[in-house]
Amino acid sequence: MTPFKTKSSRIVWSCPWYSIRQDEIELPNGETAVYNTVVKEAAVWIIPVTPAGEIILIHQYRHTVDDWCWEIPAGSKKPEQTLEAAALAELREETGGVPDQMTYVGQFYLANGICNEIGHIFLATGVELGPTAHEATEVMAVHTLPMAEVFRMARAGEITDGPSALALFLCENEIHTAVS
Amino acid sequence: MTPFKTKSSRIVWSCPWYSIRQDEIELPNGETAVYNTVVKEAAVWIIPVTPAGEIILIHQYRHTVDDWCWEIPAGSKKPEQTLEAAALAELREETGGVPDQMTYVGQFYLANGICNEIGHIFLATGVELGPTAHEATEVMAVHTLPMAEVFRMARAGEITDGPSALALFLCENEIHTAVS
Repeated sequence: MTPFKTKSSRIVWSCPWYSIRQDEIELPNGETAVYNTVVKEAAVWIIPVTPAGEIILIHQYRHTVDDWCWEIPAGSKKPEQTLEAAALAELREETGGVPDQMTYVGQFYLANGICNEIGHIFLATGVELGPTAHEATEVMAVHTLPMAEVFRMARAGEITDGPSALALFLCENEIHTAVS
Repeated sequence: MTPFKTKSSRIVWSCPWYSIRQDEIELPNGETAVYNTVVKEAAVWIIPVTPAGEIILIHQYRHTVDDWCWEIPAGSKKPEQTLEAAALAELREETGGVPDQMTYVGQFYLANGICNEIGHIFLATGVELGPTAHEATEVMAVHTLPMAEVFRMARAGEITDGPSALALFLCENEIHTAVS
């Protein structure tokens, strides 16, 4: 059941990464309202686990928040990519990592009040690190940390990228099973 | 250390809820790039726990994703509000709930690749439900569920609003302590 009826829809702003869609909607009470949505391609978050059972994190400068953030590798899917191809590409570009196995964990909405972006989570196991291929706007360092330390950081709120922390919690059991 | 130098900055689009700021930045390699940021007021997510130790969830239709989502009460802070005042207001408007006590849990970035929004998490205990005050665009139902069922839903990926699921995981220990 869709409680809002969309009467018209148009793109009012766009850039190469996302756009703003402005809908005129009819509310359940019969009134008309304007609803703006940030329209963005789905993205992937990848938890990279090494053969020794350690987790690879990146420490990245984020211009949007003017802060250095602890994160797992992530990035937007290109329109022609499958989710798994996007996850493999981001893992390799950001950490140089190549996994033995990729397991799909699940999905979530990042900010469903304003944006249609879906985050998809993958668990990458048996990851061996190699050379990275960072873009010029990607300022980051790659760290390999003990699993217990990563979950301590997540519980303490030190993994400030919300989707990264959520991804870790959502597959905490799978990670322990995968490396035991 | 800020690796990007902002050379110019202007608002290129705005609506009453957020705007787009377009920065011209100098990258560490000396090149110039354009970086767009969705600029939005901080928001609050509130975990409402009843005196009996149950958790209050809302099941809400989200136009952005055309989907019904399980969530905890949440909303943007108004510029003049404190975080705690915003949390109390959202809890009361969306669920009719009034708490005995509000505890600040922590913060996270929602989508730091494109947006500056910070989410702040509160744990509300001793919550008694009363009449709600939904806005016309807020189509939702309020449910009171056993704590174990809510954490089962979170682990199963059924709480599809990412920040809501993250908030639950981040204060799982505090919730159990608060009601024991």
